Amino acid sequence: MLPAWLNTLHHDGSEKYVSNLYPRLRETIQVRLRAGENAPVKRLFLRIFPDGEQFIVPMKKAQRESPVQWWEVDLHINEPTVHYRFLVEAEDGIWWYTAAGPTNHEPLDNTDFRILADYNSPAWLQETVFYQIFPDTFANGDPSNDPQPHEYEFRGKHPTTYPWGTAAPDSQSFHLVFYGGDLPGIVQRLDYLEMLGVTALYLNPIFTAYTNHKYDVVDYESVDPHLGGNDALIQLRQALNERNMRYIVDIVPNHCGYYSHWFQNARQNPNAQEAEFFTFNNHPNDYATWLGVWSLPKLNYRSAELRRRIYEGVDAIFRRWLKPPYSADGWRVDVANMLGRQGETQVGVEVGRGIRQAVKETRADAYLMGENFFDASVQLQGDQLDGVMNYMGMSIPLQHWLRGYQTHAPGLEEEIQSPHAWPTTALETTWRARRAAIPWAIALQQYNLLDSHDTSRIRSVLGGNDALHRLAVVILMTFPGVPSIYYGDEIGMEDVPRFRSRGCMIWDETEWDTELLDFHRRLIALRRRSKILQRGGFQMLAVEEDTFAYQRESSEGRIIVVAHRSKTPRPAKPMPVEHGGIPNGTRFVEFFSNQGSLVEHGVLPLPEHPQGATLWTEQP
Amino acid sequence: MLPAWLNTLHHDGSEKYVSNLYPRLRETIQVRLRAGENAPVKRLFLRIFPDGEQFIVPMKKAQRESPVQWWEVDLHINEPTVHYRFLVEAEDGIWWYTAAGPTNHEPLDNTDFRILADYNSPAWLQETVFYQIFPDTFANGDPSNDPQPHEYEFRGKHPTTYPWGTAAPDSQSFHLVFYGGDLPGIVQRLDYLEMLGVTALYLNPIFTAYTNHKYDVVDYESVDPHLGGNDALIQLRQALNERNMRYIVDIVPNHCGYYSHWFQNARQNPNAQEAEFFTFNNHPNDYATWLGVWSLPKLNYRSAELRRRIYEGVDAIFRRWLKPPYSADGWRVDVANMLGRQGETQVGVEVGRGIRQAVKETRADAYLMGENFFDASVQLQGDQLDGVMNYMGMSIPLQHWLRGYQTHAPGLEEEIQSPHAWPTTALETTWRARRAAIPWAIALQQYNLLDSHDTSRIRSVLGGNDALHRLAVVILMTFPGVPSIYYGDEIGMEDVPRFRSRGCMIWDETEWDTELLDFHRRLIALRRRSKILQRGGFQMLAVEEDTFAYQRESSEGRIIVVAHRSKTPRPAKPMPVEHGGIPNGTRFVEFFSNQGSLVEHGVLPLPEHPQGATLWTEQP
Repeated sequence: MLPAWLNTLHHDGSEKYVSNLYPRLRETIQVRLRAGENAPVKRLFLRIFPDGEQFIVPMKKAQRESPVQWWEVDLHINEPTVHYRFLVEAEDGIWWYTAAGPTNHEPLDNTDFRILADYNSPAWLQETVFYQIFPDTFANGDPSNDPQPHEYEFRGKHPTTYPWGTAAPDSQSFHLVFYGGDLPGIVQRLDYLEMLGVTALYLNPIFTAYTNHKYDVVDYESVDPHLGGNDALIQLRQALNERNMRYIVDIVPNHCGYYSHWFQNARQNPNAQEAEFFTFNNHPNDYATWLGVWSLPKLNYRSAELRRRIYEGVDAIFRRWLKPPYSADGWRVDVANMLGRQGETQVGVEVGRGIRQAVKETRADAYLMGENFFDASVQLQGDQLDGVMNYMGMSIPLQHWLRGYQTHAPGLEEEIQSPHAWPTTALETTWRARRAAIPWAIALQQYNLLDSHDTSRIRSVLGGNDALHRLAVVILMTFPGVPSIYYGDEIGMEDVPRFRSRGCMIWDETEWDTELLDFHRRLIALRRRSKILQRGGFQMLAVEEDTFAYQRESSEGRIIVVAHRSKTPRPAKPMPVEHGGIPNGTRFVEFFSNQGSLVEHGVLPLPEHPQGATLWTEQP
Repeated sequence: MLPAWLNTLHHDGSEKYVSNLYPRLRETIQVRLRAGENAPVKRLFLRIFPDGEQFIVPMKKAQRESPVQWWEVDLHINEPTVHYRFLVEAEDGIWWYTAAGPTNHEPLDNTDFRILADYNSPAWLQETVFYQIFPDTFANGDPSNDPQPHEYEFRGKHPTTYPWGTAAPDSQSFHLVFYGGDLPGIVQRLDYLEMLGVTALYLNPIFTAYTNHKYDVVDYESVDPHLGGNDALIQLRQALNERNMRYIVDIVPNHCGYYSHWFQNARQNPNAQEAEFFTFNNHPNDYATWLGVWSLPKLNYRSAELRRRIYEGVDAIFRRWLKPPYSADGWRVDVANMLGRQGETQVGVEVGRGIRQAVKETRADAYLMGENFFDASVQLQGDQLDGVMNYMGMSIPLQHWLRGYQTHAPGLEEEIQSPHAWPTTALETTWRARRAAIPWAIALQQYNLLDSHDTSRIRSVLGGNDALHRLAVVILMTFPGVPSIYYGDEIGMEDVPRFRSRGCMIWDETEWDTELLDFHRRLIALRRRSKILQRGGFQMLAVEEDTFAYQRESSEGRIIVVAHRSKTPRPAKPMPVEHGGIPNGTRFVEFFSNQGSLVEHGVLPLPEHPQGATLWTEQP
């Protein structure tokens, strides 16, 4: 066990602790750390590693702001990524402090804090709240373009459009069930989205394809006519511009559709240029795919021509849609975890860097975000993705804590489930480890989400428990990173049969959970106006059996979030906050109830806390 | 706290747990894990990540060998590095098991076990015990080549050779104090080295240079005439061949000497080809160096021509000395941690990979080992170094445990010291974390050492404490990796004034600690004949306040090492070993005392244990 005073050490790489989050190369910045004013610290050092050699730099004792003693030191940004940790010489020994917390032993470098030089963060991200739309089931603005059976064949099957929200017959292949949603439908619903408060859209694939999910891209260069075609995208862009809203689109560089021109050329002619885009074990019918799905042939990035068409060339896919008249604000990269990885060919890092270069050259403020359900640390060091769908860093650990561990994977016949909810320490450790693995500047860009087209809806995950659903929404809106709402979650939609989370958006307002909608609106509005939530640091303040609390902290003040999972309320009792550097006399007001509470003797008195989350804002 | 039964889980990537340590790409191997036979395991899974996607593969229950239940599963080696961990579904919850131990939360990938495909390990390494020689102070075989003042000037100063073992006047610049040691001297002392039992030499730099340490290389293409020149190296090679011994040499690719032809050309002519090998802030006197040392100008790997000369070209330095007639068996790469790293230019990985390719192309069984006092994980993934001088993974944590934490670094006015010895948990965690960060195949290739020309001698570090010195030697000889002895340690040499660990080898046998020498001989012989020590797995069995014990385990049997640091003996008491998978009835015999002990009821009775280490070998 480490001595308790070590919990009074805090640094997280955020604005209050680093004088410039986005320094230029060769700039000198200031790094600050706080310690409890009574901590037995004799000397504090910054441990840096310029060009691979250790330097241990004494820090200066700076101001004392009870209960905090500040320490500070200059840090020269000498290389593209500067990593650092702290060494503490105390009366009771030598300790280290990294992004993963304090240790009694010399840590590896992979938990060091990290600062990126010359890094351009899309500035608009911080004030953004995303809204994810699965186009076919969001809103049908133009029934004349709905997919009809005669239009194409998909291995002997045909698309059909069904009445909105009705079940399709089981005989109809799942992927060819359509409801007619399209881009004009989105344009028509922008009033709704503006009322909700979201400021950017993430659209699931819109390029021409045969299935309803459109991950089987047939033509990367056209918007699917069933969604309205290229013109509809231009009109959506214009309509968004009028509301100062943005959009990003799903791009699928890991594989394309079986019916794509590329794959059909390659199948028909082994000497076609596109033949090298694929891996034929035995031409033409035995080819590498995404996880064995015949309709999704894997793209082979050994091919220089493929790289040219996907991202390197002047008119490459990754570039063209970022340019006018479409002017997408960024990309969500599908299956980013497997991109460029294929047995002996492991060029994922090279491809990831190439994509970043292409995207940022085309549009410096584009958001380049990827799908990665796993440990994405390698892609999140500043040279590849701006962020990933933050399942592992945010929502999945939260779900394990709320309802028990569950996982599934290809090759596993049944889900692995544990009825035991995760201990709060497991949640804390996981959140911390995932933050510690990436620069803070990247953590602020993570795409935070509770669910998506690839998961169950959060409300279904939580068994329809409204209090836990709201708890999760509070975490979503107050966690470091950019929050996003999956369409319909805000009105209480749950999974539907077959389509799971991809059911038709409910537009009949009498079926809405309007209180939940209002709850979302209020939190979105708070998030959009709060610099503390957008840029503040993060510190866990309490880890109890069924409760945790964290602090977001910036020069504008503090917000404390308390989450309690049990149906049995947490009894009224004080919560220690002195290790959060919070002075006695600080007054907090709860966001939903307007209850006040005053810090005294290092603790914040908390009233009885029911299942759910509360949100305590420091009063100026 | 995790449940105690989790300690009965064990896998370490060694031979007993992996059917082939060196599989080819596309081979299928078997992975095994042991658990206590009474552990509440319901199902066990192997979590793999082919091409970036998670698969969770059920393991099969295999044989029961009380107290162990084995589990096994096939693993397809589909890519150059395959990493894996274990998921445990137990009656008390879901757990993970990685190279860093068990957790209650989903770990990051960086503690996964790792297997390299198509990896060629220098087979001779396993049976090798190295002996490091600082040539000028080891043995003077040819006084006619001793450096004389008239031979050259070094910024106004001149070399002088002093009588063996005498102090040089303070007025003589430290780096120009010579004692005349040379390669013929080494040849003359091979009887001694053979008697000691070492089988390979690591020679500090031998290429022509002006200082006694020769890190200021003047000519990479010639052996310094003061060491005997190229012919002496050929003779050394032949003499070693006769004894079936090997040698590796220190190479200095990070910087060269101020007086090198390259740097002098660059200084004299800004348009010389060599000018791009360096970084002139202001030609010719302001140039980048190694840590500000004027005599060591930093080499700039942006230069393609430099890469060609150092490693890429057919006759590049890294290649030529591996070829006949010199036929070096490998390299120790100086300052590997900073190589190719220079502010905005960070090409260390690229250069590291290029060097590996050049070395292995030239000689597939060459040992490529580097200096790295810090976290070398990035260089130890199989694509760069075979190993590093294992200060951080072995000896420095041991020293912190034996005598308290100490560190120094450039920029630090005085050493940071703690009188508190490291807790045993800190030692355990550090050793484990460093092993967990690299593949087991690499761990077996680490160059383990207690000291070197860059540190104090171990006996001085330990204040002359003979028991602790011997303890350290036992660890050195029984730890995973390749042991090495720094010349003279075996006879009890301590630091000398000014030269610290670089004092003249004592050849007057009356000054030897012959008991210590014999102790070394016995342990070296044991290490050379023990497959268990060469290739066996590693598991910590006991972590007590002043004592630790670990097990090396292979199909040939087990060796348990017990180390006790306190002057107060550990009282006679049993040590639990059931979690080590050791059956009741197993008999161990202690190496030094021949005492026997029998495992009963899951514990190994240990007699009173004085300060030092004991070594318990399983009896067949």
